[in-house]
Amino acid sequence: MKIVTSPAEMQSIALDLRQQGRTVGLVPTMGWFHEGHLSLMRKAKDVADSVITSLFVNPIQFGPSEDLDNYPYDLERDKALAAATGVDFLYAPEKDSMYTDAFSTTVHVEGVSEGLCGDARPGHFDGVTTVVAKLFNQTLPHFAVFGQKDFQQLAVIRQMVRDLDFPIEIIAHPIVRESSGLAMSSRNTYLKDEDQDAALSLSRGIANAKELAADRSATVEKIKQSVQQDIEKHQACEVEYIEIVNATSLAVCDNIDSESVILLAVKINNSIRLIDNSFLLASS
Amino acid sequence: MKIVTSPAEMQSIALDLRQQGRTVGLVPTMGWFHEGHLSLMRKAKDVADSVITSLFVNPIQFGPSEDLDNYPYDLERDKALAAATGVDFLYAPEKDSMYTDAFSTTVHVEGVSEGLCGDARPGHFDGVTTVVAKLFNQTLPHFAVFGQKDFQQLAVIRQMVRDLDFPIEIIAHPIVRESSGLAMSSRNTYLKDEDQDAALSLSRGIANAKELAADRSATVEKIKQSVQQDIEKHQACEVEYIEIVNATSLAVCDNIDSESVILLAVKINNSIRLIDNSFLLASS
Repeated sequence: MKIVTSPAEMQSIALDLRQQGRTVGLVPTMGWFHEGHLSLMRKAKDVADSVITSLFVNPIQFGPSEDLDNYPYDLERDKALAAATGVDFLYAPEKDSMYTDAFSTTVHVEGVSEGLCGDARPGHFDGVTTVVAKLFNQTLPHFAVFGQKDFQQLAVIRQMVRDLDFPIEIIAHPIVRESSGLAMSSRNTYLKDEDQDAALSLSRGIANAKELAADRSATVEKIKQSVQQDIEKHQACEVEYIEIVNATSLAVCDNIDSESVILLAVKINNSIRLIDNSFLLASS
Repeated sequence: MKIVTSPAEMQSIALDLRQQGRTVGLVPTMGWFHEGHLSLMRKAKDVADSVITSLFVNPIQFGPSEDLDNYPYDLERDKALAAATGVDFLYAPEKDSMYTDAFSTTVHVEGVSEGLCGDARPGHFDGVTTVVAKLFNQTLPHFAVFGQKDFQQLAVIRQMVRDLDFPIEIIAHPIVRESSGLAMSSRNTYLKDEDQDAALSLSRGIANAKELAADRSATVEKIKQSVQQDIEKHQACEVEYIEIVNATSLAVCDNIDSESVILLAVKINNSIRLIDNSFLLASS
């Protein structure tokens, strides 16, 4: 596995790979790899000849009161994990090479970026779409693999790719969970032992919602209330949002159907922000 | 010369050209070709193996009170001119294939897009950068050739390409003028015979400014005033702006140096908006 830190070198490698007729798969990450990331890398390996994993803790997608400075980072640890998963290029650019002082361009997606995490984290999705546009142009992939845990992010990126005609197929990969049910996240590293039960309230809430949805009598409102009550039994939990939306438009559902997704964001101990989601009528 | 109207077909052709190892040059236009456009196409032909000229009157770069509905258009005329100039692909997408109802992405450049035409035409440069990002992804060029007549547009596009890391070399091509000195523009077609003298006030103002700058005693303010007075001698002329700026940053100059450019926008008969510009200390 080759380590690349320069955007210009990365782009030159990507152009060479394409020139050689090799297909390229990109897995954009902020590092601190867990099995969720590794499953994205394996998926990219399945579909593309060469896999690039980018590792960049993108400052412009963090709000001023968010956890940029504490975001977990260990390049040596991540190198070993990516190499063992068969990644060909680990692309870890320096912040200054991504954003010079003169940097002044923003890619903005309306609509699907509004509400949910877009409301809770103003400017977040502009930071995401702008860095992803840069990463796409630096790595020129045929495929880019994103996790479904960041469900709204995936919808926003699909919209950008469609609207700006990037010649890239976006592949969504299912959430990977701990045996406890907790959705894997780099931010789980912030959880202390005594936070575990509170953190599990998200996946338990989803299981509860799916049971209610399965019997077809519960309304959207009733399901949301039930999940909220369950989660708020935990003193440590503060619900940021619970919404049931259409998977493509992210418009709030009036009724549950096969395209309905429940999306949750919960703060644990007023500091650790966890998200989770699931199609309501899916079996897994 | 092949005519392409579908974005998907255009992208597929562009990917094939790259796969064959051919370099691609793009000339983005809104059509109604004049010698200025044709010189851009010849320049693209000089540097690239295959030349794509796009012809799209981009609605999102026009303000509500601007001339979108009247913008001159004649595809058959333009086909003949492009073919005679050696263009390989004339790419003329339909509006609906560029912007679906669900379209919701904007590429925004701060800084160089502000002031000048950015003030006079709110939203104009967002429309330009968004469509150019689309055209870049649809045609995947190695080179893109833009005219220097749209001086601020060129600065904005260069900034976008740098910031978003498009793997594209931007080539600027000098203004082409009528023998009278009038900068060529598709909008010159709006000028009646009796408007010609007023329209020439821009290039005459530039000639005047260059003379004043050459003797090194005139201040920026004095040059601007002198040009303004000359132009406003024409009853038909209303000055929108006259500025002397640094060619790269577009910051207003305190003193004239080799990077100083004079930029003008003038409305003729309160309807025909003409722009022109020149380096002040250049010989031509």
